[in-house]
Amino acid sequence: MRVVCCVRSSTISDKCIVIFKPSGKVIEVEVGTLLSDAATQAGIDLNLPCGGQGRCGRCKLLVEHGPVSRRPSAKLSPAEEEEGYALACQTVVKGDVILFVPEQEKIERRIVEEAKGAERIALPLELEWPIDPSIGKFFVTIEPPSLEDNTSDFDRLRRELKAQHNFPDLTTSLPVLKKLATTLRDANWQVTAVLEMGDSEPANNCGPYLINILPGDQTTQSFGLAIDIGTTTNVVYLVDLSSGQVIDRASEYNGQISCGEDIISRIIYSQKGDGLAHLQRLVLKTLNGLIDELSGRNDIRPQEINKATVAGNTTMIQLFLGLNPKYIREEPYIPTISHPPPMTAEEVGLNINPQGIVDCLPGVGAYVGADITAGVLSSGMYKTDALTLFMDVGTNGEMVLGNADWLLACACSAGPAFEGSGVRYGMRATAGAIEEIWINPDGYEPTYRVIGNVPPRGICGSGMISLLAEMFITGVIDKSGKIHRDLPTPRTRVGDHGGEYVVAWAAETGIGHDIVITEVDIENLIRTKAAIYAGFSVLVHSVGLELADIEQFLIGGAFGQYINIEKAIQIGLLPDLPWERFKYLGNTSVLGAYYSLLSRALRREVAEIASKMTYLELSADNRFMDQFMSALFLPHTDTTSFPSVMRLLER
Amino acid sequence: MRVVCCVRSSTISDKCIVIFKPSGKVIEVEVGTLLSDAATQAGIDLNLPCGGQGRCGRCKLLVEHGPVSRRPSAKLSPAEEEEGYALACQTVVKGDVILFVPEQEKIERRIVEEAKGAERIALPLELEWPIDPSIGKFFVTIEPPSLEDNTSDFDRLRRELKAQHNFPDLTTSLPVLKKLATTLRDANWQVTAVLEMGDSEPANNCGPYLINILPGDQTTQSFGLAIDIGTTTNVVYLVDLSSGQVIDRASEYNGQISCGEDIISRIIYSQKGDGLAHLQRLVLKTLNGLIDELSGRNDIRPQEINKATVAGNTTMIQLFLGLNPKYIREEPYIPTISHPPPMTAEEVGLNINPQGIVDCLPGVGAYVGADITAGVLSSGMYKTDALTLFMDVGTNGEMVLGNADWLLACACSAGPAFEGSGVRYGMRATAGAIEEIWINPDGYEPTYRVIGNVPPRGICGSGMISLLAEMFITGVIDKSGKIHRDLPTPRTRVGDHGGEYVVAWAAETGIGHDIVITEVDIENLIRTKAAIYAGFSVLVHSVGLELADIEQFLIGGAFGQYINIEKAIQIGLLPDLPWERFKYLGNTSVLGAYYSLLSRALRREVAEIASKMTYLELSADNRFMDQFMSALFLPHTDTTSFPSVMRLLER
Repeated sequence: MRVVCCVRSSTISDKCIVIFKPSGKVIEVEVGTLLSDAATQAGIDLNLPCGGQGRCGRCKLLVEHGPVSRRPSAKLSPAEEEEGYALACQTVVKGDVILFVPEQEKIERRIVEEAKGAERIALPLELEWPIDPSIGKFFVTIEPPSLEDNTSDFDRLRRELKAQHNFPDLTTSLPVLKKLATTLRDANWQVTAVLEMGDSEPANNCGPYLINILPGDQTTQSFGLAIDIGTTTNVVYLVDLSSGQVIDRASEYNGQISCGEDIISRIIYSQKGDGLAHLQRLVLKTLNGLIDELSGRNDIRPQEINKATVAGNTTMIQLFLGLNPKYIREEPYIPTISHPPPMTAEEVGLNINPQGIVDCLPGVGAYVGADITAGVLSSGMYKTDALTLFMDVGTNGEMVLGNADWLLACACSAGPAFEGSGVRYGMRATAGAIEEIWINPDGYEPTYRVIGNVPPRGICGSGMISLLAEMFITGVIDKSGKIHRDLPTPRTRVGDHGGEYVVAWAAETGIGHDIVITEVDIENLIRTKAAIYAGFSVLVHSVGLELADIEQFLIGGAFGQYINIEKAIQIGLLPDLPWERFKYLGNTSVLGAYYSLLSRALRREVAEIASKMTYLELSADNRFMDQFMSALFLPHTDTTSFPSVMRLLER
Repeated sequence: MRVVCCVRSSTISDKCIVIFKPSGKVIEVEVGTLLSDAATQAGIDLNLPCGGQGRCGRCKLLVEHGPVSRRPSAKLSPAEEEEGYALACQTVVKGDVILFVPEQEKIERRIVEEAKGAERIALPLELEWPIDPSIGKFFVTIEPPSLEDNTSDFDRLRRELKAQHNFPDLTTSLPVLKKLATTLRDANWQVTAVLEMGDSEPANNCGPYLINILPGDQTTQSFGLAIDIGTTTNVVYLVDLSSGQVIDRASEYNGQISCGEDIISRIIYSQKGDGLAHLQRLVLKTLNGLIDELSGRNDIRPQEINKATVAGNTTMIQLFLGLNPKYIREEPYIPTISHPPPMTAEEVGLNINPQGIVDCLPGVGAYVGADITAGVLSSGMYKTDALTLFMDVGTNGEMVLGNADWLLACACSAGPAFEGSGVRYGMRATAGAIEEIWINPDGYEPTYRVIGNVPPRGICGSGMISLLAEMFITGVIDKSGKIHRDLPTPRTRVGDHGGEYVVAWAAETGIGHDIVITEVDIENLIRTKAAIYAGFSVLVHSVGLELADIEQFLIGGAFGQYINIEKAIQIGLLPDLPWERFKYLGNTSVLGAYYSLLSRALRREVAEIASKMTYLELSADNRFMDQFMSALFLPHTDTTSFPSVMRLLER
């Protein structure tokens, strides 16, 4: 350790030196510091998909030198421990150490939603309602003051807004007042007033609010943002508030992923030290990066953006606002607020006009958030007579049953198995992910398609549905998910974690290992699909109906977009309904934010939707557990519910 | 200059070193920097009563060594220039210099308004109206959440406030939301909600606003502040919002005095570099110091103070809020805003509960501010039938004429002569100021009374009124203010500035010079009293009345408190009315703020007063100039208006 002595600040202390390879970063920490905390301190990105709970085993490091203390973990094989590997989140330093950080799984962006270039994108949907955003820009010509008419600057502006645009009153904030006098005079008393006019909800509407004052006539262009803060992906639409057009859109993985892949992991992370503030900084960094990208590409200044309407699940919204999500996780699962008041971009930390308005859409509860109310809005289910089930399966699974008269919602902690967590070779839908698999019933050889046309590195959600269905239909696994061990193929075998099926041999992969699916993986996937199926079963039964009564089955969320309906029915993830009743809607959350940004009437509708939606808490419902147990088979214990699958199996 | 070479950062540059003695502070500045700016940079308090215009001559420094460039100034005698003196605000450094800063005039506090100790002070007036502050504290017991009742924290609170206290709705801010979840649970769901309920003015009232949440029942104590930001003095009342009692009060000179003694000097200072921000910092420092003093003395935490109601002239309010006052000074004299919206203490910079409300009372125009509307409120003139003239002579002179039916206001740029500026030995009413003078008509020997019973250092406002009256009545000066040069006394003589009268010989003073009043001083004083007299003359005449019709003559403001009515009539500062019509009201501005803090009804009255008050702009009025010219004599050109004075002179 002679090499580090020169950087040590004191020779006798409770501090020790940590050297990270290959970056060469050196930091000093207290003895007893977690390796993951030391990495954060050193500015090294370490993926902690489970939030540092020691459950996922993805934060493996090699301890090349020096004393550490490991908590025992099933995620490290004896061989790995022998080699010196340790889980960063479960290991503390006991003295000066040298660590080797393996290359982390890259969070690459899948170019799906991304619209490159500055070309104008057509509206995602025909807008059937008038464009009426809460942000208004009004040009006013003001009579310059004189000794005979020496009303104050603000009152002159107020007077003209009333005379020329019929506003009853006006209020504003200090930062706008600070620039008012100079702007009025420099612009020769011809200015554009930028107003937030409110959505007319009594609690939040204090009459028009002056959020900016600009020289001359700048009424022709007015910009806003529709934002969806997903647990995995953040999406931002740049919207022209005059025409209603989506000028451009951009998306990026939520920067918080490195601190936990699912909501629960994030909440756990938020409870550690600076965790909450760190998570808020990360999501703001992601969003501000997207705003920079959009404004740069379209040649507008972020200061010209006056409003951001935000959807997202309740935990994401609370982390975005810096509100402690602790009690969302603890029974009885209570968020701080379901409908945050309008805030300024400055106080939230969004890099648009600092006095611009951040409007977080209302949610219903801890696990039915603004992403769902926004989804219900954009799906239109709240105005149809048809019995509709709307499902948003992202990192969590939420669903809403109802029509124009009533709405009943529930959330099932489906777990992120289909997003790659809890599955050994699971990964997100990025380059290298197997997204579709076919198994030849003669010989059980698979064929697969890989995102990005590169050697495979793992299997993403749609790949897993496809793989599970194919294994089941071809008889590689039985209805309880167990692998038949007597098949005439080297693809099935017994590995460290029990039976497994080899999807890709090491030589054909990009990772140098066989890519397999194990019985443990399959069990996780079946539990996830069972939770989802149990969720909508309970919803439907609780109002005295049957799954077959569902007239429309709408699927939102990024994940839904890639589900193969046929395969999803085969494994019992979706009910066995005629295919035409299923409809993909894409990212219904950002679409709902977009609608709410453009129309004050629709903004009121979201609040109406949130207030009339009844939340069914499944964790308190025995029927859920019964349904869940029945769904732990492929496709289901009650095979009569899956006639099409039964017919196929008979063939 | 060898001594400074070692601190020089580069040997060839446009920088030079300035050493300040006796403090020994050393700084590096650009060649061409004003000595006054260099002093500010070095953190040396230098009084700039005229705001750095070179008009007052009070910022003299001794240049002991090194090159400087002086702008010519009549404020430096050739002898002083010879000795090396320079005006800091009119002199730039040309190379490395050593400066000696003479001891600055101490801004000592006159213990007048100050209530020492923690004893409770009786109400200043019988309160004839119910105590109904906009800040309410409400204890609520909330049913803890359960799976069956999983409403969000904020909605639970809102629900209970509605059920238990009948509030229709509630809004709040991010900082309060951030502590909500923890407070509710730590306090076992028994909390005190601190609400700003608004004053029911439509523009500013968005329904109750949650500004704090406290554990348990903390409703018994609720604190607010009434603040008067005077150009010279800042006054803060600490108020118990439950009982209405003034718990304690404190006052201090406005920290901005060192940057200019009057409004115009401050505005000029605000236009230089960082001037505006510096002035805002200074007044905030003064106010926060007073808040510290009050909270420390009364054993409360500043965070327990939830509201500050603020009065002050328009320039002081704008500087307090950091709003550029530039256009208040330039014709047609326009403030940014007359009625600032409610703001949080955090955004203004006042050290109370950061989410507490700062409510600046409404003013009428650039020179009739919230100090006057507050004064009209607390004087009660807006509800009397008697024709009333209310005058507030502080650093500026504002007056209001009217009754319950109408209010007419004007401001005269009286100038701060009575506050010590523009008078050679003028000074503020602090220790060492001569405050009262009697001249013996036989021999013209004066007797005087000094504040603090110390050797005199100068003459304050009341002393000047007294001196002027005595000199006039005893014939030391004639009606145009000229000193009779043939009197048989060594007290009258001709000095550097023409005729002068010696009030105190050098040996009896605390400054080692004769204290004199010169003909130039007298001219300044006469101009000031003429402006004030012309002001209320025009007011009265403009509604077709005479001065004799005034039934009540109310005098507010710190200065008014010390005026001797008899003497003030003798010099024609006040009209010759029966003495019983005059009434001192003390600091009517802070009293108006106090009333507005305690009663929402009275808060609405102030707004009503501001909106119904008509402002008469004197600078556009020829009648003012005529009246002013006529008043440039003692007591007045029209001696018939001063019968009592004429009778006295005849004796």
